[in-house]
Amino acid sequence: MNIAIWGYGIVGNGVAQVLDINRELIEKRAGKSLNIKYILDLREFPGDPYEDRVIHDVDICLNDPDVDIICETMGGNEPAYTFTKRALASGKSVCTSNKELVANHGAELIALAKANQCSYLFEASVGGGIPVIRVLNECLTAETILEMSGILNGTTNYILTKMEKEGAEFADALKEAQEKGYAEKNPEADVEGYDACRKIAILSSLAAQKTVDYKDIYTEGITKITSGDFDYANAMDMTIKLLAVSAKKDGSYLASVAPYMVSKESPIAGVNDVFNAVFVKSNTLGDTMYYGKGAGKLPTASAVMADVVKCAQNHGTHIEILWEDSKAEVLSFEDAQNRFFVRTAAEDAGIVKELFGKVTEISLEQYPEEFGFVTQPIAEKEAKEKIEKLPGLISRIRIKA
Amino acid sequence: MNIAIWGYGIVGNGVAQVLDINRELIEKRAGKSLNIKYILDLREFPGDPYEDRVIHDVDICLNDPDVDIICETMGGNEPAYTFTKRALASGKSVCTSNKELVANHGAELIALAKANQCSYLFEASVGGGIPVIRVLNECLTAETILEMSGILNGTTNYILTKMEKEGAEFADALKEAQEKGYAEKNPEADVEGYDACRKIAILSSLAAQKTVDYKDIYTEGITKITSGDFDYANAMDMTIKLLAVSAKKDGSYLASVAPYMVSKESPIAGVNDVFNAVFVKSNTLGDTMYYGKGAGKLPTASAVMADVVKCAQNHGTHIEILWEDSKAEVLSFEDAQNRFFVRTAAEDAGIVKELFGKVTEISLEQYPEEFGFVTQPIAEKEAKEKIEKLPGLISRIRIKA
Repeated sequence: MNIAIWGYGIVGNGVAQVLDINRELIEKRAGKSLNIKYILDLREFPGDPYEDRVIHDVDICLNDPDVDIICETMGGNEPAYTFTKRALASGKSVCTSNKELVANHGAELIALAKANQCSYLFEASVGGGIPVIRVLNECLTAETILEMSGILNGTTNYILTKMEKEGAEFADALKEAQEKGYAEKNPEADVEGYDACRKIAILSSLAAQKTVDYKDIYTEGITKITSGDFDYANAMDMTIKLLAVSAKKDGSYLASVAPYMVSKESPIAGVNDVFNAVFVKSNTLGDTMYYGKGAGKLPTASAVMADVVKCAQNHGTHIEILWEDSKAEVLSFEDAQNRFFVRTAAEDAGIVKELFGKVTEISLEQYPEEFGFVTQPIAEKEAKEKIEKLPGLISRIRIKA
Repeated sequence: MNIAIWGYGIVGNGVAQVLDINRELIEKRAGKSLNIKYILDLREFPGDPYEDRVIHDVDICLNDPDVDIICETMGGNEPAYTFTKRALASGKSVCTSNKELVANHGAELIALAKANQCSYLFEASVGGGIPVIRVLNECLTAETILEMSGILNGTTNYILTKMEKEGAEFADALKEAQEKGYAEKNPEADVEGYDACRKIAILSSLAAQKTVDYKDIYTEGITKITSGDFDYANAMDMTIKLLAVSAKKDGSYLASVAPYMVSKESPIAGVNDVFNAVFVKSNTLGDTMYYGKGAGKLPTASAVMADVVKCAQNHGTHIEILWEDSKAEVLSFEDAQNRFFVRTAAEDAGIVKELFGKVTEISLEQYPEEFGFVTQPIAEKEAKEKIEKLPGLISRIRIKA
């Protein structure tokens, strides 16, 4: 069976590598031999073991009836969207790591695959090598998913771990992440939470079986978190994590991405560095958790290759994924209830009492000019209005219940 | 599609309940409606919603061509083995929670299912509701599994958690577990490690793709663990867990079940009460972890029902599981290297030096008459011989590297 890799960057190259490393086992599971026939990329790769497979024209691949499975590791919306539609329309299955495209057009592409007796699989789009997509689609099939929460972005988790363990400031931790190749030169998609937002949108859509639009998900990044915030967290026996959360409420979904203070006792506090973890609460099974490397060349490529195996096993048929092309109702985050930790100027103590009523005060010796406190649970909209009224506001972070 | 439940005990009753609770979703995923046609049990169940489906003669079910899927929740080898063979031989798929039977005859029953175009699935046999079987069979399909370790028995984990958190002795913690229904009247299978042994044998067999015989797996229970051992563990910032471990070494497998001291910093230390967790190390993905309720009525039943969904989706075809009916080579545990924590009489200090050379001494004020120490890594056989020579030996526990 012939496969093609579209986009020979880090993940695409990883796909070829994983196949080379575990070929015997992979082909045994697939039930057939797998040959990389084409590698589509704008660049040449002299010296690469697959240099002779490199093509620059997608039509060569699309017009070749011998290509059955495509690994789309290009990323981004276009041209991946157009190319993927053409592949699926011609009956070629597509296995992708492209969370952008899945979040934007997942339902449509699944339907197109179904109409053409092929499959659109995207295990690698969320959680890197953690098989969380398959868990939702093929494992917890007797369960109603009630809530999912997790650390879905390895870059920001690396940065926050650095800040926690070494007292680093955000800018320095980001720089180190960039030097180590964990963060891109333009880190916006990661540090502003956009990447995690796409991923929780995909997970939510699979739980809802219709599209949870990522544009409806409240998203806040970690750029404003400081080492001082970690000092307070530490004093409360907590740490700070960028959490993606999605909960089902009466048939609608409440989803968000934001930094939260979490108890050091909670299992999520132990998820460090580039690791990801997804917690799933479902109605008869209760809590389960899935943990592993959420990014990285080989882990992500391994997930793409597992999808290739599945497509090879099911060649000529469509692998069902319940995700309809209609919109799930997403609740406004303004009504969500959260407790907040707030740092403001010491002079604001009186205003705080007026605005928030009973709060829990947190004072640290090293910040004598500050007044730190934790609110009662309060609606987001109300919290925002009140916090904005504090003249000496320094920062505010939600606390995970 | 008609299904039958064999054995209407806790799990069997749970299967009916899970189907009732999540019927709409389950039937949507299965692609067809599911009807419980028979419940096979020696007892009657007056007042049960399914009392009119109860039969006492397996032939009624086996001779009914309208029954396609059987949930075998009887447990034990016989008559489950004979009944299962007859079902598979007549083309009926069997979904089971029976770890005993899977450990003993898994490969044979899979082959029989394959020969008859039906399936033998056993997600519920390991890890209760945690989908670890499917993870190995259908998710990490591009991976060579190098090592698995985990907490696979909820009863013993509940007892050890009680001992750790409340200073309880084993007998009292066991009694409480029995009162809560977490331990059976005859708790031997759990507390002696036999249950965990069957489960790690199943996981090892799936990794090896041939049978790792549970009789070849070194198995030690938790009956000798005392609150004093936990005092020492605590002083070393550790706790004690019953670990099932299986590692691939040059094509052979080294597997064991035994209590280990583990660092409180390690994620496994945070797996408490009846929760289970399985850690998997594979060659390109690295470490992943799967966590959830490892036992209990509805979680286990949910796993059985997920297998039913899979069988319904694949009706008329065999769901491939790579597990050949030949024996994998299992290495002797005698050659395994471990560090040991040992408690002996204070007078033995001199002999300890003679026997073990350099050790790390651990003394606790509350045990002035004892000499506690940690050995260097040492082969099991050698450790046993030397530890037996200590006249005042109190206890010894391995330390997880």
